[in-house]
Amino acid sequence: MAEAAVSGRRRGGGADARRERRRGGAGVAMPHIRRRVPVYEVLDGEGLTLIENNADKVLAEIGIEFREDPEALDLWRTAGAEIDGERVRFPKGMLREILKTAPSTFTQHARNPERSVEIGGKSTVFAPVYGPPFVRDLDKGRRYATIEDFRNFVKLAYVAPAIHHSGGTLCEPVDLPVNKRHLDMVAAHIRYSDKPFMGSVTHPERAKDSVAMAEFVFGKEFVDQNCVLINLINANSPMVFDSTMLGALKVYAAANQATVISPFILAGAMSPVTVAGTLTQILAESMAGMALTQLVRPGAPVVFGTFASSISMQSGAPTFGTPEPSLVLYGAAQLARRLGVPFRSGGSLCGSKVPDAQAAYESAQTLAPTLLAGVNFCLHAAGWLEGGLVSSYEKFVMDADQCAMMQRFAEGIDLSENGQALDAIEEVGPGSHYLGAAHTRANFETAFYRSPLTDNNSFEQWESEGGKRIEERANAQWKSWLEAYEQPALDPAIDEQLEDFIRTKKDSMPDAFT
Amino acid sequence: MAEAAVSGRRRGGGADARRERRRGGAGVAMPHIRRRVPVYEVLDGEGLTLIENNADKVLAEIGIEFREDPEALDLWRTAGAEIDGERVRFPKGMLREILKTAPSTFTQHARNPERSVEIGGKSTVFAPVYGPPFVRDLDKGRRYATIEDFRNFVKLAYVAPAIHHSGGTLCEPVDLPVNKRHLDMVAAHIRYSDKPFMGSVTHPERAKDSVAMAEFVFGKEFVDQNCVLINLINANSPMVFDSTMLGALKVYAAANQATVISPFILAGAMSPVTVAGTLTQILAESMAGMALTQLVRPGAPVVFGTFASSISMQSGAPTFGTPEPSLVLYGAAQLARRLGVPFRSGGSLCGSKVPDAQAAYESAQTLAPTLLAGVNFCLHAAGWLEGGLVSSYEKFVMDADQCAMMQRFAEGIDLSENGQALDAIEEVGPGSHYLGAAHTRANFETAFYRSPLTDNNSFEQWESEGGKRIEERANAQWKSWLEAYEQPALDPAIDEQLEDFIRTKKDSMPDAFT
Repeated sequence: MAEAAVSGRRRGGGADARRERRRGGAGVAMPHIRRRVPVYEVLDGEGLTLIENNADKVLAEIGIEFREDPEALDLWRTAGAEIDGERVRFPKGMLREILKTAPSTFTQHARNPERSVEIGGKSTVFAPVYGPPFVRDLDKGRRYATIEDFRNFVKLAYVAPAIHHSGGTLCEPVDLPVNKRHLDMVAAHIRYSDKPFMGSVTHPERAKDSVAMAEFVFGKEFVDQNCVLINLINANSPMVFDSTMLGALKVYAAANQATVISPFILAGAMSPVTVAGTLTQILAESMAGMALTQLVRPGAPVVFGTFASSISMQSGAPTFGTPEPSLVLYGAAQLARRLGVPFRSGGSLCGSKVPDAQAAYESAQTLAPTLLAGVNFCLHAAGWLEGGLVSSYEKFVMDADQCAMMQRFAEGIDLSENGQALDAIEEVGPGSHYLGAAHTRANFETAFYRSPLTDNNSFEQWESEGGKRIEERANAQWKSWLEAYEQPALDPAIDEQLEDFIRTKKDSMPDAFT
Repeated sequence: MAEAAVSGRRRGGGADARRERRRGGAGVAMPHIRRRVPVYEVLDGEGLTLIENNADKVLAEIGIEFREDPEALDLWRTAGAEIDGERVRFPKGMLREILKTAPSTFTQHARNPERSVEIGGKSTVFAPVYGPPFVRDLDKGRRYATIEDFRNFVKLAYVAPAIHHSGGTLCEPVDLPVNKRHLDMVAAHIRYSDKPFMGSVTHPERAKDSVAMAEFVFGKEFVDQNCVLINLINANSPMVFDSTMLGALKVYAAANQATVISPFILAGAMSPVTVAGTLTQILAESMAGMALTQLVRPGAPVVFGTFASSISMQSGAPTFGTPEPSLVLYGAAQLARRLGVPFRSGGSLCGSKVPDAQAAYESAQTLAPTLLAGVNFCLHAAGWLEGGLVSSYEKFVMDADQCAMMQRFAEGIDLSENGQALDAIEEVGPGSHYLGAAHTRANFETAFYRSPLTDNNSFEQWESEGGKRIEERANAQWKSWLEAYEQPALDPAIDEQLEDFIRTKKDSMPDAFT
C-alpha cells in the first residue's frame, strides 16, 4: 500500500473509544463484526442436498445465458461447458470444481488499514444503501439525488460507528452525466472517507476507471495482489447475465478485485413463488457467475450474493421484511457456507415510503436474519427506503443505530467472572436493588448498549420536550453528524493525481444523460 | 368440559380458511404455532452448566425470601429447605428434584376446543399485552383505560388471526373499583371470546373468584383435572416473593391451574448489569417459585417465565429491544428447556410513546428472538406501548400482523415437489418471468404472506391515496375489526350463573379504589 495514503488514519482503540462506541457515539469506528454467536440454520443436510442437486439439474439441463459476450462463451467452451447459442449448460460437478480456487475469506483493504475488513468466515461487514435515484429528508421531502447528497452519505457512513464500509452508489447523483458520474462517486469515497468502498459496474470502461483510481491510492502492484474494491454484479434473473454486468465482472476479476455475484430476485417474478424453488435458482445463477470469475483469474475474490424479496401477488409490487425472504436468506447463507465462499445478503430493507413503523418492522425483520444467518457482506444496512428507490437521511442514522445493536449482540454473552456477577448478587441480596452496587458502578459505562436515538423517558418528560417521533430526533442526529464530520487527510499528491485523471477522462467524452 | 359451553364454536379449517389466513384476514383464527424451524441457542453446554451451578450457589448460600406467608415457609421446611426468618435456602439439587413432577407440556383448554393451546415443546402461543393502566389511539390520544377499552381489546384479540390467546389484564379498567374489576375482566374474556384466558392475581380472593367463574364454564370436575386458566406470578426481584403473589400462586396451584413464575427484571436495577448475572438470578428465582407450586400440588402445570429488559444507566428508565435483553431471552429459553418446563418470555416490547419506527424496531427485535428462542407462551405479543404503560389500539393490529408473519416463518421451508418448483424453472427458462407460469398461478393464493397493513404500492399511488403512515392504516383496521366482530355464542345458563356470581360478589363488599 502506498504509505502516504494512510496519513489520515484515525485511531479507534482504548477504553475511551470502547465506552464511546457503546454509547453509539459518532466518529469512533467499530471494527467489522467478528461473530461470537452461532449461526441460525433453517435447513438440515438433507434439505440442502436436495436444493444443491436441483441446482445442478438446472445448470446441466436448462443452463444460463451469457448475452452478447463471445469472450465469456469462449471461456466456458474452453472450460468444458456445453454451448448452445448464448445458452451455457454445465456438466454436473464442473462449477464446484472451478470454484475450488475461490478464496473462502479475503481482506478488502481500506486506505486506513484500521478500516480494512475481512469478508468471509465469522465476519459481518455493514455497508450502506446502494442505488437509489431519490433521497428524502424531513426538511425537503423526496427529491432526485445529487452529488452533494452522495457526498453527504459518504460522510454519514464515515461517521457512523457500526457502518464498516463506505459502500458504492449511496444514491445516484442524477445531476451529473451518466457517463461521468462514476468518477465523482469513486473520488468522493476516496476523499471523504477512509473506509473500504465499491467500484462502478455500469460499463466496463467505468470499472477500469475505478481500478485506475484505486491504483493512485494503493499503488498498482498492491492492487494487483490485493483486494481494494468490491463490486456488485447482478444476474438478470432468471438465468441471464447481460453484457454490461459481464463486462464489469471480467474487468474486476482480471484486476484481482472482488465481485459479488447477486441474482436480483423478486420471487414470483424473477424466481418461483416458493422458497425452495427460489433457493435452487439463486444457487444455480450464483455458481455460474462466480465460476466465471475463476475462469478469468483463478483465485480472484468472489462473493455469493443474494438480493431476494417477494412481490405482492395482487399488485406485483415488491414486498420486504416478510417471512419468505427471511427463509431464503437463511437458506442461501447455508448454501454459501457449503460452497466455501463468502456470502452477501440482507440489509435494512423496507417498502415504506416514509421512516414509519412499517419501515422499521420490515428493516428489523431483514437485519436480524442478516446477522443470525451469518451474512459476511451486507449492503443496504442503512438508509434504504421505498423499495430501494430512496436514500433516506433519517433512516440512515436510525438503521445505523440498529447495526450497532447487532454488533453488540454478536459479541454474545460474557461468561468471565465479571460477567457472572456472583459478587453483585451476594452484595445486593433479596429485596434490595443493584443501582448502587459496586459491580454496577464498575460496569456502568459499558453495561448496556446505549442508543443515541431512542427515547425512554417518562411520557411527561417526552411530552414536555415536544413529544417527538424518532425521525425528528434522527433529523437532528444526521445534521449533527455532518457538522461533526472531519475529513480524513489524504496525501495531496494522490489527490492531485485523482484530479488530473478525472479531468482528462471528463474532457475525453461528451456528456451523456441517458 | 361442559358441553353447552362450546355451542359458539367457529370453524377455522379448509382451503378457504388457509387462504384467508395467509391474507392476514380477520376472524379466521390460526391454531397456535407448532414450530417446524429449529431454535436458536446462544450458549453452549459449558456456559449453561456454569450458570446453573451459579444459580444453585445463589439458592444454597443467599436464598430467596418468601414474605408474610407462614404457609409457604412451612411447605419449604417440610420439603427440607433451610429456613432463616423469611429467608429460605435450598440444598443443591433439591429444587430440581421437586420440579420433576412439573409437566414439560400441557394443554390450556378454551371453551371452544379448537382454540385450546398446547404450552410447551415446539408450541408458541401469542397472547396480548398485559397490565397497562392507559390506552392510546390516534383519535383520542392517551387516556386512562376503562372496561369498555378492555372489552374492545378482548374483541380485537378474538378477531386477530395469529393471537392465540385472550390474555389477562389487556388494560387496567380504572373506572371500576380495584376490588371488583377482576370480575368484569374475567367475565369479558368468557363472554366476548372463546380463546383461552388468564385469571386475576392481585389478591388470593380474586384468584379464587377466577377459578369459580371458570368452573361455571368448564365444570368443577373438569377444572380440577385440567388447565383452563394460566396466571402470571411475578417475583419481586431480586430474590423476593411477596404475600400477594404467593397467595395467588397457592390458589392456582391447588386448583391445578397453570402459573407462570416470572421474575420481573430490569437489569441494572433488579438484577446485575450483565447478561450472565441476570440469567443466574432469573434461574434461581424461577426455580424457587416453580418448585413451590409442586409442593402445593405435585403435577400442577407451571411455566418458567422471564420478563427481562434493561435500564438506561443514565436515567434509570427501562429500555427495550436492545441486544442485552435478546441475549437474556435466548439464554433463559435454553435454561428452561434443560429444566424440562415450558417457557414464557418475549412479546412486542418497546419504550416509545407512539407507534413510530422506534416502537417497531424495538418490538421486532423482541418478537423475532421470541420465536427463534422457542418461547412457548408469549405475553405482550400485541398492543404494548410506552414500556407497558399503554395499550395501543393501532399498535395492537400492527403487532398482530407481525405475529402472523412469525407464524408463517415457523412453518419453515416447504421441500415438497411443489415447493421445489423445478417444473416452474423449466417452464420459464432464461430471460422470461414467472408471473404467468402455471406453477405461479397454482400457488397464487398461498404463495406469500400478505400483510393487510403494509403499503407496497408506488410512491405516486401511495401519495394519491393520502400519503398515509402505517398507524393511520392501523387506525382504520382496528375499527373495521371491531365492526366485523361477532360475539361467540355462550350457553345462556352459564351466562346467568356468571351474572349471579358477579352480582353477589359485588354486593358483598364496598367499592375500593386503591
